[in-house]
Amino acid sequence: MADQPQRIRERKTFEKFQPPKRVLLGPGPSPVEDRVLEAMAAPVLGHLDPLFLRCMDDIQEMLRYVFETGNRVTVPISATGSAGMEAALVNIIEPGDEVIVCIHGVFGERMLDIIGRAGGKPVIVRAEWGHAIGRKDIEAALDSSKPRALAIVHAETSTGVLQDLTGLGELAHNNGALLVVDAVTSLGGHPVGVDRNGIDVCYSGTQKCLGAPPGLAPITFSERALERIRARNSKVQSWYLDMTMVEKYWGADRTYHHTAPISMNYALREALRIVCDEGLEARWWRHERNHRALVAGVEAMGLEMNVAPEHRLWSLNAIRVPEGVDDARVRGRLLNDSNIEIGGGLGPLKGKIWRIGLMGSGSSRENVLLVLEALNRALNAEGFSCASGVEAAEGVN
Amino acid sequence: MADQPQRIRERKTFEKFQPPKRVLLGPGPSPVEDRVLEAMAAPVLGHLDPLFLRCMDDIQEMLRYVFETGNRVTVPISATGSAGMEAALVNIIEPGDEVIVCIHGVFGERMLDIIGRAGGKPVIVRAEWGHAIGRKDIEAALDSSKPRALAIVHAETSTGVLQDLTGLGELAHNNGALLVVDAVTSLGGHPVGVDRNGIDVCYSGTQKCLGAPPGLAPITFSERALERIRARNSKVQSWYLDMTMVEKYWGADRTYHHTAPISMNYALREALRIVCDEGLEARWWRHERNHRALVAGVEAMGLEMNVAPEHRLWSLNAIRVPEGVDDARVRGRLLNDSNIEIGGGLGPLKGKIWRIGLMGSGSSRENVLLVLEALNRALNAEGFSCASGVEAAEGVN
Repeated sequence: MADQPQRIRERKTFEKFQPPKRVLLGPGPSPVEDRVLEAMAAPVLGHLDPLFLRCMDDIQEMLRYVFETGNRVTVPISATGSAGMEAALVNIIEPGDEVIVCIHGVFGERMLDIIGRAGGKPVIVRAEWGHAIGRKDIEAALDSSKPRALAIVHAETSTGVLQDLTGLGELAHNNGALLVVDAVTSLGGHPVGVDRNGIDVCYSGTQKCLGAPPGLAPITFSERALERIRARNSKVQSWYLDMTMVEKYWGADRTYHHTAPISMNYALREALRIVCDEGLEARWWRHERNHRALVAGVEAMGLEMNVAPEHRLWSLNAIRVPEGVDDARVRGRLLNDSNIEIGGGLGPLKGKIWRIGLMGSGSSRENVLLVLEALNRALNAEGFSCASGVEAAEGVN
Repeated sequence: MADQPQRIRERKTFEKFQPPKRVLLGPGPSPVEDRVLEAMAAPVLGHLDPLFLRCMDDIQEMLRYVFETGNRVTVPISATGSAGMEAALVNIIEPGDEVIVCIHGVFGERMLDIIGRAGGKPVIVRAEWGHAIGRKDIEAALDSSKPRALAIVHAETSTGVLQDLTGLGELAHNNGALLVVDAVTSLGGHPVGVDRNGIDVCYSGTQKCLGAPPGLAPITFSERALERIRARNSKVQSWYLDMTMVEKYWGADRTYHHTAPISMNYALREALRIVCDEGLEARWWRHERNHRALVAGVEAMGLEMNVAPEHRLWSLNAIRVPEGVDDARVRGRLLNDSNIEIGGGLGPLKGKIWRIGLMGSGSSRENVLLVLEALNRALNAEGFSCASGVEAAEGVN
């Protein structure tokens, strides 16, 4: 067969791909600054090159800063945020382990799915989509189970809900459980406070408030979590995400595990430098301020936020689609007329909310005004007459 | 606790990272052309943006061309090559399934590890590192088992061995098994012929003969493999790598699964355009020709190749470290004096071979001469006197 003439499929010719510059105000990816994009155009180094190892060290050091942790094992997983979720769960769960999983949106559901695939026995605590998980419900679940872990989403990207983490670490630890937190849409935009909040495993993505392109999942493990991993009876089910091996490549051993995505790490390093330059607190308050401006504008337009004030994310804003307005048509207008991407609702909120992300460099006063104006134009064009939100937004300090 | 003043770790300042341009002649990553690096600096689009969906379609079309397949499900996994291996195996294996795994280097061992984590029962066929797997040994394993799959590495990056695939598809199918092939270091540099060779699952990495940075794992599934996945009794153990969901994002449904690494896909698209411009056959023969030139040079220097001529990879050349020469010191000299990265041996070949990769744009006559000269200088500096290999290499057409 090898001697037969090769039968090759037809060769196609494609033009160079030249994507336009969108204003990315959806649920992520968020806008990426030019210096981060340009960092990826630097020459590729080998994954064991001494100079790349130094780049890895810098990334770990800066990730500890943004996670607010002293955790030794604080690294980017070589895949996107959802792989961070999978890494967090499959490393600590063994078949038969009870795991409390809090579900109030897509990402809680995804945790549940992963826990099941890992052989865990989920103990489910639910809240309605758009609401926060109740503390009492968590306490009740802890009382009625012997969980290996308590898993909760800090920033539900699907609903715009911020979950208060205060005291959850203590609560989990007092019940012999590890606290696992999804900070995909909060890290870099909201205080996460891994050490302060007693979080044992916390993961995020690069394409939200950190301002890098999608492709890596920063993750951190407490000593308590690492002890748990060392005490496993079975291997971690995923070879690629097995932290006992991943940590040896990122740690002092430098043992080859897989080939790190070099260029993505360049991008993350540069994005983290921007976070460090701005300072974490300043970055949080910028996210908070622009969120408040957007809310003021939205409400001045006569629209309603979908989440109660005390549970709103700064990075992801859920706005109710007014009665009689076609969600997708409005989003289409924003994209095609104003080059702005915003998100629609998912699951039970499909067609009912818009999701406006103000993340990373996307969280700017300029973008708030831009999206308010564009939304106003689109709604009026769709026959839903509404006032401008610009003045109200400009009035917010 | 939330009201307490934030305790933030010290903020560090890091300089901009400016990696030098190495001549990457190791086991990968291979050199990346400027136009591919620059493609990553293009503005990031949303992962459901209609323009990005078109970019995804182009990638799938070009991947079918390089895999030589008509397979509908032919996509890049959003992680590096080893995740491609994991995706290939965990999608088709269920607990208790027998799997024949051929081991003659690091990557066969890695397959074995992953098969075990997936609950598979491995039936091992071994060959000594540096040798090819014997056809009779595979036949014997097929006779003595009822395997779900036959898994084999086409291009063993750890040893430089090319495995002949002729007839393996028929052999596997006649025994009710799927043929799974690791083409990480061959795709784009050697004929792989997915359809021609009856391969059911084939995966690769972007950072070898395809000439993109590491970060994605192209993979293709035959209809037979997809039927197997549809017939599963249990969920795929990895949520992130579950092809039943991944294919819906890449296929007509466009259902959100995870956020694709946008910039990495730009890079892959541009690298595939280069492959299409050159033409697959022309690319193979370029890899073959430069391999022959390197071998001629190496042998003229009085050094020996570690693999028998009929089993040599064109993309990865294993050269025996001469008696009394310190492997790592020579590699250090190449890196520090000549800015050239080559690889050392792994496992039983540690300290015994050098691995010189000639992959993608790295497979050039210029690089062959460069590395021969640098190796000659380094060996002479280490007190091992040898002749120049340059003239012999130049003589190869």
